Amino acid sequence: MSDDRWGLGVDIGGTKIIIAHVAEGGNVLNQKIIPTNAQQGPLGVINHVIQEAHAIQSAARNNPMSIGIGMAGQILPEGIVEFAPNLGWHHVDLKGLISEALKIPVLILNDVRAATWGEWKFGAGKGFNDIVCLMIGTGIGGGAVIGGNLMTGANNAAGELGHFPVQLNGPKCTCGNLGCLESLAAGWAIAKQAKEAILHDSNRRGVFPGSENNDIDSITAKDVLLLAGKGDQTAMLIINNAIEAIVAGCIGYANVFNPSRLIIGGGLGLALPHLIERIEKGLKERALEAASEKLKVVPANLMQNAVAIGAADFALSSRATAFS
Amino acid sequence: MSDDRWGLGVDIGGTKIIIAHVAEGGNVLNQKIIPTNAQQGPLGVINHVIQEAHAIQSAARNNPMSIGIGMAGQILPEGIVEFAPNLGWHHVDLKGLISEALKIPVLILNDVRAATWGEWKFGAGKGFNDIVCLMIGTGIGGGAVIGGNLMTGANNAAGELGHFPVQLNGPKCTCGNLGCLESLAAGWAIAKQAKEAILHDSNRRGVFPGSENNDIDSITAKDVLLLAGKGDQTAMLIINNAIEAIVAGCIGYANVFNPSRLIIGGGLGLALPHLIERIEKGLKERALEAASEKLKVVPANLMQNAVAIGAADFALSSRATAFS
Repeated sequence: MSDDRWGLGVDIGGTKIIIAHVAEGGNVLNQKIIPTNAQQGPLGVINHVIQEAHAIQSAARNNPMSIGIGMAGQILPEGIVEFAPNLGWHHVDLKGLISEALKIPVLILNDVRAATWGEWKFGAGKGFNDIVCLMIGTGIGGGAVIGGNLMTGANNAAGELGHFPVQLNGPKCTCGNLGCLESLAAGWAIAKQAKEAILHDSNRRGVFPGSENNDIDSITAKDVLLLAGKGDQTAMLIINNAIEAIVAGCIGYANVFNPSRLIIGGGLGLALPHLIERIEKGLKERALEAASEKLKVVPANLMQNAVAIGAADFALSSRATAFS
Repeated sequence: MSDDRWGLGVDIGGTKIIIAHVAEGGNVLNQKIIPTNAQQGPLGVINHVIQEAHAIQSAARNNPMSIGIGMAGQILPEGIVEFAPNLGWHHVDLKGLISEALKIPVLILNDVRAATWGEWKFGAGKGFNDIVCLMIGTGIGGGAVIGGNLMTGANNAAGELGHFPVQLNGPKCTCGNLGCLESLAAGWAIAKQAKEAILHDSNRRGVFPGSENNDIDSITAKDVLLLAGKGDQTAMLIINNAIEAIVAGCIGYANVFNPSRLIIGGGLGLALPHLIERIEKGLKERALEAASEKLKVVPANLMQNAVAIGAADFALSSRATAFS
């Protein structure tokens, strides 16, 4: 393992793109962050990525072995972005376009799965064969490494840990199901509950930050968290219910996967008060002993570079193929 | 692959034990079924297994390569039966005792995981890299093969698919958690709901088969199923709720594992009316499209030999080690 062997890692997000020179050991030696400018459409965005990839390549002593790209959405096994809701992409041959331009092996994977791989290889899950990542933000995503292999599923779609129903006949989820973990605890679900609470009590208009001037639509989970921190009973109840749903989901994932580490990430996941302690308490009290006795709950630690590092390394680990 | 290479497969159940000569291709060429006689204690039961194993070995042309044993309970990675609730065993060194007597490599695994492996290798999941088995009986167990590997977990305890909570603050489960799939849909849970319905309505005493003479305790899920089949509204509601909980769990497992096959087994799983069709309908309407579009729900098909075949083959697949 030396710095000579390296890969490009790319994280294509809804608002920004990270393009990184990732050494084989996981270190980011150079990186560029650019705005996504999704309005330019797939070709515009991809050309921008290619241009910055060339720039990073030029600055390095030698050529990268491969490029790994993580992005939100449904990625077909052959590297086609079937649907990327953040960017409005449908059936974009991302692998083909990148492969043609860069002439190196290309691997495309879902961003949360890339982050899971990164956390397993270099971050909070390093050294363990079995880990589960739960990334809690606007939505809830996840991933698992099982016996040292990233769980990908039959259709490259495994790991949707936010879409396990934990409340029969619960609230409608964005996916169309009822009572998914995401529908109870994701950022959008917390904001939605706050909006509903305000609509049910006109005296509360203006009480939620962001809801002055009746601008209820602009309320975010962050507003609810802030208000809960100030002792507002409704906000506290909403946050507490979200945490309870997450704890229940984590008990389920401990029982199902029996991992060594349960990694909690995402902006909201890292901001919810005492979330890790609450999960650990729930596991101790209510998970199967055999499944949880050796399990530790830990925060994600690669932060904003997790996707780029994970994607680069997953490609480097000889899983990328050239010119599919 | 030839009949010359074979393994012993053993299924130690609460009431009976199956000991089988399993050829490398999964065929059972000879088998013996004996009563467990759990009251004889671990050594009595194990000696009986060893005796029958010797008998099957003597009847064969050559020696077995290995022995695989499946049984319900918590099996430590080193082959110790930490706890087997059906038999009342605590910390029994099953691998050590069998290994010493038979002088061949021994592998011990949980019975449902053994059946999952058997169904994957030779049964309803044959030919697919990713399958999930849900075995619905008195309890609900499960297992998964992911990317061609049996999911075992960090502590050999993975696959407790009956213990994912699908109803926040739902009924108390045998595991101590609330609202587990098992607490809503296992045989014991269905029987419990029927008993509660009778206790809440004294006019119903005698209506449930088995509940004549106030012998409420003897009601089983089978009684409830029979009565539902005759149109009893309460029984139908109980069965329907159980099926709805199973459907919700299956949607979750499709979203999480993205398997090619979801295999439904267990006496109750195969008896619940239209269960597979109900699950398929639920998946179509409420699972993520990417996770379920290629998924088929199928009944288990190795039946009573699944555990013995799976355990024998898992050991044969060079996963067994001698004299640990």
